[in-house]
Amino acid sequence: MVMKKEVPVFYAPPECVAGGARITLPPDEATHAVRVLRRQRGDRVEVVDGRGNWYRILLDQASKDQVAGAIVEHRSGHNEPAAHLRIGVALLKHRQRFDTFLEKGTELGVTEILPLVTRRTQARAFRADRAHRVMVAAMKQCRRSALPLLHAPERLEAVLGYPWDGVKCVAHQRARSPLNEILDARPAEGVTVLIGPEAGFAEDEVLSANSRGFLSVALGPRRLRAETAAIVAAATVTMHRSRARRQA
Amino acid sequence: MVMKKEVPVFYAPPECVAGGARITLPPDEATHAVRVLRRQRGDRVEVVDGRGNWYRILLDQASKDQVAGAIVEHRSGHNEPAAHLRIGVALLKHRQRFDTFLEKGTELGVTEILPLVTRRTQARAFRADRAHRVMVAAMKQCRRSALPLLHAPERLEAVLGYPWDGVKCVAHQRARSPLNEILDARPAEGVTVLIGPEAGFAEDEVLSANSRGFLSVALGPRRLRAETAAIVAAATVTMHRSRARRQA
Repeated sequence: MVMKKEVPVFYAPPECVAGGARITLPPDEATHAVRVLRRQRGDRVEVVDGRGNWYRILLDQASKDQVAGAIVEHRSGHNEPAAHLRIGVALLKHRQRFDTFLEKGTELGVTEILPLVTRRTQARAFRADRAHRVMVAAMKQCRRSALPLLHAPERLEAVLGYPWDGVKCVAHQRARSPLNEILDARPAEGVTVLIGPEAGFAEDEVLSANSRGFLSVALGPRRLRAETAAIVAAATVTMHRSRARRQA
Repeated sequence: MVMKKEVPVFYAPPECVAGGARITLPPDEATHAVRVLRRQRGDRVEVVDGRGNWYRILLDQASKDQVAGAIVEHRSGHNEPAAHLRIGVALLKHRQRFDTFLEKGTELGVTEILPLVTRRTQARAFRADRAHRVMVAAMKQCRRSALPLLHAPERLEAVLGYPWDGVKCVAHQRARSPLNEILDARPAEGVTVLIGPEAGFAEDEVLSANSRGFLSVALGPRRLRAETAAIVAAATVTMHRSRARRQA
């Protein structure tokens, strides 16, 4: 049995795309393409721009300093969800755990990530460059064409005040309605789910969210780690949409 | 606002439980109880045995060498799911990724974990002691009373031949039915889901599983990493059961 041949995808942000006609890979992707994957002039390679554009290009330059080619095919919104999936999750003390969410969330089609600062948030530092690297790797691996839009950390109160469209939820261990039940009524809409830090949201933060139209939702019967809750929320929305599409 | 007070739970395997009357904590848990958490004689502490038993004990010994007490309360099946949730997942090259599944799977109520050896499995080594430590930490954190039953790595063909009860599924990216749709017909039954390695199951492995009664299921529209797929499968079953319980 032959192994499935994986076609590698390269990442080139929009500034690498010249006039919709040519793409020049950024230096690290160029090095990887030539040194590791042995791409040559005449090869066709797939490129995504992290904003929802997928391209096939025909390489006419393939040295270690310059890998570039003409666009021969272009798709917009390739492998991207039809509706928003926004996850707000409190900054976590252990960065590795936040990274785990960034990776899995990207795979699961999250379109916006809001790092939250809440009453009980102990972490403050956030490295957007590190987060970007994790998301780029995940985007390429799962063959999305867009990166989640990553917000700078914001206070919960500010996030509650935004005019988010669609279904708005706040995860809360004592909530009675599981997230998938809430989605049943509005399967095709955008979804925003907020997840608290290690110690959870404070009671009045949940009440404040409720008063702004966020429904309290449960993510199963047990206490979950914050990043697990965020992954479960994303998985629940993705699976719910898959089922709704089949039944439509 | 006062922080939620977390009551720590200690782990004492069944051999530490004497005649259903007394529990002596194992050395590492005893050290943690006395040195870090400052537990003393007269304190009541919660203990789980990893087999579904939850106890409250009244400490009458609390030195760094010996922490023990009489059982004053006992519950069986505490915070455990009513039906089996078995996840078979191929051994992964990056152990850290398998550990991520072990942790999240434990939080999500997985009752049995089957490390699989498939055609395209490149990893062979498996450290059960390391897996045990990850699962114990997760069990305590999410307040389960049982550890998932961890099987030794087995060849896929052997696992396919077992007389598993309930719904049997094999995850496959090109499958048309999402897992939650399959569960709709049999919401309360035990579930077994098999997940392939990094390169997926071989086509004939899927066919072999199908011929043994395993239904091909999809876990959303995108290609997921193996451990992400395993976590999504567990999350989907847990959330589906939460919703079914509410509607029953």
